[in-house]
This record gives sequence, C-alpha cells and structure tokens, in this order.
Amino acid sequence: MSPSRALAYARAHRKNFLSELMDFIRFPSISAQPSHDGDIRRCAHWLAGHLRTIGLDDVRSIPTRRHPIVCASARGAPGRPTLLIYGHYDVQPVDPLNQWRSPPFEPTIRGADLFGRGACDDKGQMFTHVKALQAYLQTTGAPPVNVKCLFEGEEEIGSQNLLPFVLRNKNFLTADTAVMSDTRMLGPNRPAINYAERGALYLELEVHGPEHDLHSGNFGGAIHNPLQALCEMIAKLHDANGRIAIPDVYDSVRRWSDHERAEMARTGPSNVEVLQNARAEVAWGERGYSLYERLTLRPALTINGISGGYQGPGGKGVIPARATAKLSFRLVPDQNPRKIDRLFRNYIARITPPTMRVSVKTLSNAEPVVIDPQHPSVRAARVAYRKGFGAAPVFLRSGGTIPILNMFQKTLGVPTVLMGFALPDDQAHAPNEKFHIPNFFKGIETSIWFMDALASSRLDRCHSPRPGRNAAEENVELSDDH
Amino acid sequence: MSPSRALAYARAHRKNFLSELMDFIRFPSISAQPSHDGDIRRCAHWLAGHLRTIGLDDVRSIPTRRHPIVCASARGAPGRPTLLIYGHYDVQPVDPLNQWRSPPFEPTIRGADLFGRGACDDKGQMFTHVKALQAYLQTTGAPPVNVKCLFEGEEEIGSQNLLPFVLRNKNFLTADTAVMSDTRMLGPNRPAINYAERGALYLELEVHGPEHDLHSGNFGGAIHNPLQALCEMIAKLHDANGRIAIPDVYDSVRRWSDHERAEMARTGPSNVEVLQNARAEVAWGERGYSLYERLTLRPALTINGISGGYQGPGGKGVIPARATAKLSFRLVPDQNPRKIDRLFRNYIARITPPTMRVSVKTLSNAEPVVIDPQHPSVRAARVAYRKGFGAAPVFLRSGGTIPILNMFQKTLGVPTVLMGFALPDDQAHAPNEKFHIPNFFKGIETSIWFMDALASSRLDRCHSPRPGRNAAEENVELSDDH
Repeated sequence: MSPSRALAYARAHRKNFLSELMDFIRFPSISAQPSHDGDIRRCAHWLAGHLRTIGLDDVRSIPTRRHPIVCASARGAPGRPTLLIYGHYDVQPVDPLNQWRSPPFEPTIRGADLFGRGACDDKGQMFTHVKALQAYLQTTGAPPVNVKCLFEGEEEIGSQNLLPFVLRNKNFLTADTAVMSDTRMLGPNRPAINYAERGALYLELEVHGPEHDLHSGNFGGAIHNPLQALCEMIAKLHDANGRIAIPDVYDSVRRWSDHERAEMARTGPSNVEVLQNARAEVAWGERGYSLYERLTLRPALTINGISGGYQGPGGKGVIPARATAKLSFRLVPDQNPRKIDRLFRNYIARITPPTMRVSVKTLSNAEPVVIDPQHPSVRAARVAYRKGFGAAPVFLRSGGTIPILNMFQKTLGVPTVLMGFALPDDQAHAPNEKFHIPNFFKGIETSIWFMDALASSRLDRCHSPRPGRNAAEENVELSDDH
Repeated sequence: MSPSRALAYARAHRKNFLSELMDFIRFPSISAQPSHDGDIRRCAHWLAGHLRTIGLDDVRSIPTRRHPIVCASARGAPGRPTLLIYGHYDVQPVDPLNQWRSPPFEPTIRGADLFGRGACDDKGQMFTHVKALQAYLQTTGAPPVNVKCLFEGEEEIGSQNLLPFVLRNKNFLTADTAVMSDTRMLGPNRPAINYAERGALYLELEVHGPEHDLHSGNFGGAIHNPLQALCEMIAKLHDANGRIAIPDVYDSVRRWSDHERAEMARTGPSNVEVLQNARAEVAWGERGYSLYERLTLRPALTINGISGGYQGPGGKGVIPARATAKLSFRLVPDQNPRKIDRLFRNYIARITPPTMRVSVKTLSNAEPVVIDPQHPSVRAARVAYRKGFGAAPVFLRSGGTIPILNMFQKTLGVPTVLMGFALPDDQAHAPNEKFHIPNFFKGIETSIWFMDALASSRLDRCHSPRPGRNAAEENVELSDDH
C-alpha cells in the first residue's frame, strides 16, 4: 500500500489546509495569561471538533487544573506499530505588541510566509500531522500505523499538568514511538532532526526593600533600592567571560570528545549562521566554544524579564518597595534541574545584601534529553524527509527545551522523533512569528511518508528504551549517510 | 486690621473646605501619562472656576505645549507687599494600584486623614492658601497683601513649560516674595521651614541588543542580553560603600562646616526618625554621614524604574531586544545638573559592553537651591506658624526637588518661603497618599496669619535677591529662636 492517494489528497487540499490553519491561529491561546483562559478553552474545543470532522476516533478534550488536553486516536492497522503524535495548541504571549507588522491573531500571508502567533510554534507544525492523518483517513480510510494524538495547552508554561495526566493514562498512551514537530530545520531545503534538547529551570526572583514605595527625593541616598540591589545581584550571576558565576553549576556538565565536537562543527550551524539567525552582529558567551556549542553543549542563564518601579512615560521619583526578575537556566547533560535550583538559591542567599529580603519561586523545570539517532523510528523519519523535502536531514542538537520530551523518554519509555519544520528566522516567541508555507505543505507530505515508513519498520528490533534514564544517553552515534 | 474675621470664616467653613478639597482630588490629573491629558485639562478648568467663585480677579487657565497654567490675582492692598503663591494641581502616577486601600481618586477619610492621590502633594497643601484667600475675600473683601497665584500642571514632570511662561510674564509675576507649600513638617505639631532643596537630573537609559526579541532556548548563551547588560552597567553606578561610582561626580559637592553639621544634627530628624518615616529597618548609603545628611548634603543616584523582557504572569523564554532604566540624581550645592549629565553620559559610554548600543535621554533637570532663613518673609512665616500651629518652626534641609524654586530665585529674583504642611508619613508619590486633616485646617489659618504678618513686614529692607545666583547661597545662618 503506497501513500500515493494520501499524497494526492494532500496536494489537492492545500488551500483548505492553509485556511484551516489560519482558523486555528486566530484563537489567542496564550497559556501564561489567565485573561486568555477562555480563549484556550475555545481553542481546545475547536481543535477537538476539527479532529472529529476529519475522521479521528476517541476524540476528547480533557480538563486539567489549568488548560485542557486534547486526545484522539486512529486504529485500523492491527499488527502495525503505534505512533504517538504530540503537539501543543497554546502559544507564547505577544508582547511587545507594537512590533508586530500585522496583529498576532489575525494570520496574514506575506510572500511565502504565514504570519501569526503560533504559526510555527506550534500550531502550524502540529497541524502537519493532523492534515497527514486527514489525508489517509479521507482516502484509504486509515493511516498505515495506529495513531494516538496528544495535544496539550501548557507547553509554553512548563507542561505542569501533563505529567500527572500521562501517569494516569499510561495505557492509552502506550506506543512504539512518538513524534513531535516543534523544532527547526537549518534552512528551507535543509531538514534536520534534533537529537538533543537542553533542559530548563525557570525561576522568579523577587527583591523586597522598604515596606512601601518611597519618594526618591525624601529618601534617596539613605534607603537601599530593591531595583539597584536586584541589578547588583544579577551582575554577580555571570563572570566577565560570560560564564555563569554560581559555584558548582558546571560541576556535572558532561565533557564531549573531540570527535563529537568535530561532527557538530561539520553538521551544525557556523558562528556566522547563528548570528544571522539571531540578526545580531556580535557574539557573546563562554570562551573556548563555538556559538553552536554554547547553545547546545553548555548551560546558559538568561534574564527573561525585569520589572520594578515606574515604567510609564516620563519620570516618577520613586524608590520601589520591590523588584522582580524572571530568569531561566538552559541545562545540558548531566545537569540536574533540582540541584541547579538549590545552587541558585544558595548563591542568591549569599549575595543578598543585608538591606533586602528575597524570595525565589521555581516556575518550571525539565531535564536535558538526548535521543538515539539510530533508532528505527528516527531512520523512518530520515526516509520521510528525503521524500518530503528531497534532502536527507542532518542531526542537530538544539538549545531549546521541550518539557514533554523527558516525560516521553523516561515515564512512557517511548523514543521520540523531533521532526522539525520551522525555519531559523520563523521568530518563535518573538513578534512577527511566521511559518514558511512551503514547509507546511512539505511537512504534511513528510508526515505521510513517515507513517508509511514506520509501517514497514522493525520497531520490535529497536533499542529498547530504559525507563528511568534517557535512551542512548551515553552512546550517541551521529550519522546522516545511512 | 486683624485677621480675626478671616479666621472665624475659616473655622466656620471647615466642612465645606474639606468637601471642596475632595472634589479637587477626584480629578486624576496625572501629568506624566498622556492618557490623562483630558483629566488635567478638566482639573485646570475646575480650579479656575473655583478661584473665580471665591472672588479672585484675573483668573485665567493658560494653555502651554503640555498642561495649562492657572493664574489669578487679588489686588486691593496698595502700598503693601505683593505675594506670589505657587502650587501644582498635577499629581504622580498611582501604580502600584493594588496597594491602595481605597481608590486613589476617590478621596476617603479614615481617622484624621484624607486619603487620595494628591491629597498632600500638592492639592491639599496649595488649597490651604486658596482657602485663606477665600476667608479674606469673603469677609474683609481683600487679603491684606496683594496676591498673585500661579498654579501649574507639570510639577511632577519637571515644570518644562513653566520657565518660558515665567520669562514671558515677568511683569505679571513681579512680587516681593513667594510662598509654596509642597514640603513636610517634622510631625503633627512640629512645623518646619525648608531652606534647602536638592536639585535633580532625571534620565532614561536604554540598552539595545539584538534587532528583535529572541528565543532564549535557541540563543541563550551565545547572544548577549540587554537586560543582563543593563544590570551589569547599573551595578557599576555605585561602589560597595554606597557612593556614586561615576568619576568626578563629587568634585563640586560643597563641604559643610562642623558648625553647620552640628546645627543640622540638633534640628533635623535623627537616623531613627528617618528610618521610621521610611518604615524601613536598615539604613544604606555613604559612610561618614548621618541619614539626614545623606538625604540633604550629599547627592544620590536612584534607579526609579526598570523594564524589559517578559513581565506577565508565569514565564516566557525570551532574550529581549532592549531594556530600559529610569534613573535620577538628587544634586546638592554646588553641583551643576548639566555637568553631571555629561559625566553620566561619558561614564555610560565607557561601561557599555561592545555587544550593546545605548541611548541616554534627559527628561528633566533642576539646580539645588538654598534660601536665606533671615529674609523678612521667612520671619513672617515663623510668626504665622507660631499662631497657626502653636509652635515655632525649625529650619530644615530637604532631600526633594521643586523645579520651580530655582526659577523663582534666579529668574524672578523672588525669595521664596517653603511653608510645608505635609507629614513625614503622608506617602507622597506612594500608594495611600494622605493629608492630615488637622494640618489642612491649621495650614489655612497659618496662611491667613502669614499674609497678615507679611502686610506689616519691612520687605523693602529685605536682603535683595541677586538674579543669576541663589540668594544667600554662601551665607546661611540657621536660627529658630528669633
């Protein structure tokens, strides 16, 4: 059974598919902001309805403490492998709003790109699989593998409610492999499979000074300012060479062989490409490492936001009572988020001036993950990319974090293929996020080919994942030529 | 002619006066925020109408580039001195709004205090003079001195349009002395006359990094973060001992004699009182100086606000494209705001990392001012306080800044009495700003007595102010016993 009918269907329905994706993007499903809780719910409801319409079974929108999880399945391939498709329908906040060329939730086509919040992260990418399923369901009646869909609404806020859900529904979620498309290619015709993601630890640091805001004329010079104290503390988080200055943070960072680093240099983006992708002129960070290595093999600590005092137009003579910073670590093997959390809190306690009180809140954390590139499902993905994009994928490490990945690998023991379709300039998390429309269509075809290749792959011969640790964590063999 | 009829009128109309002050406070006349431009205009219109109603002449609301100036006069005392009364009807922004016990623009009486934004700074304090004028106008037909009123709407944003107005209207504003009530007493029965105000220099520092916001997973560790750079720069603005670390900033700071410092220690607030007023537990700042000295004799640099990156609930993995800080110097004799501005910009240029571009904007500046406590109008104020509050005032230096003061002293050559009625815990610029109601009523009577005492004072024998420099800048003689 070849996927030719499904492919023909997908080609014939491109216009519809694009229009449906635009409908999907119109929901302002910002998971971080409680004012959008209704939008999230409406988006989940729409998604569930859409999955039913295209012919999936067991479609359910399941409430959690925060945002619903949408599940569905497609049976009809007895004896064949089962594929778990993961995606997320929640999106990042949109600020700074004034930098968007078109409103974030009014999807707009300019050139070959579809602009809108969530266009690539992750509505557009997850929709490639939804549309591939539709192409099979509406032609051959069923995809060539058994499929389970798991679409969550909390990826951008740390997937806090997904783990308990996964633990409660292990049976439903049992699968031979999983796929998620929430990562990037190297360029329009340069597909890539991510085999490593950094972990993350998201923290909020609040510095409390005087009981209430003070007039800076009446008290400036005699009462310490929480904003100043916060800045002085943040300045102590890195040394002059761009290294994190918190003691012991690098202790368990894995050292990589010259061979691995040479492979990375061969396959990964050059310093110039990283800078181009960032549209930045000057690099920064830890000496002795390429930019690609700094982004993937080395931990990072980023100040994501600071607020305190007067922020409106003009001036206000105030010493604020408190100041807040949001900051996040990106972690690499073999760092443990809980240990880093402890080191951070200890260090903050040490550098807090006697004039201030501080509080640290942990917003989310995720361990770093490495996936075996030799796994049969990864091989199936290689085949699929070749057919869908006409080029073999390279294997890349990513600097990002997918909280669910760790859960799939460890809790479910399901090896996961990171089949990215986004481009480096797609502006995920930033104003003017977009999805390259040809990638949407090629992504659908790649997903069709992926299911086809999976159907004939020997998943029973795969490296058996060992729950409790990352599969192939210790023995990654890079290859992109077989 | 004794002020007994005016005093009796003022006592009989306390309830009305309080109710009118509450009407005045209800206008959200926030000068810094363009969204309140309409409220400012309506407030000026109401004030002008009110001044007409109580019997003042020549009432005008004069538009400027930003907010109107309200003028009025009361003639009818030929041969007697002319008093210029200054006040401002604009108020500070109200954030953080959630810390107000009652809405800032719904004036609320709790105990003996009237709560609301502007209650003491400056609507309540300027209203003491308005009501004193009303008491004379409605009883004897005219105050015992000639009066000119100048009420502006831009004090909280640096009085930018007042100087050109004053220059254009020197003739109208000619006066023998001026009074403004926008300062504090030491306690409910401890009146004080401020004879020194610090200058100010308000700046905005913006740090620009990448062209647009970046995903902190994809770029964290390889691209420098403007928020981090801003913090690291701000951390270099003070040394470990609380001194401003910008070279040459202290060069022209005047040294004070042991005698002057001993007098200040005798009359001014103790360290414990300063901390109590701030409701803070721990002091901070330059060693070798009492807190009162740090606040008045020594310059300060305060970070008034920082914003950058994600500030909403939860987290967002972003490296922001830019970060902004608002900061202000308080300056003392003989510092020059323009020189300090230059020193700041030079230092910022030196400490800007090569990964960032910065821009510095000067929002406002004002020179420090010292007033001769021996001036006849200051003596008249001493008499008035004794009658109004039953206690002689002490002479205090203030840490704050009144931009207009410099203009009065230098441009108009009018010596100015700072006749404060606010209390140290009145929360000017902070949530739950209030005005102590007994001080409102005693302030009105003090103003009545002040005009009475001025009428018989020999202002023609006063130290003639020398335009172009601060009167008595060099030879301040403290005294509170004659």
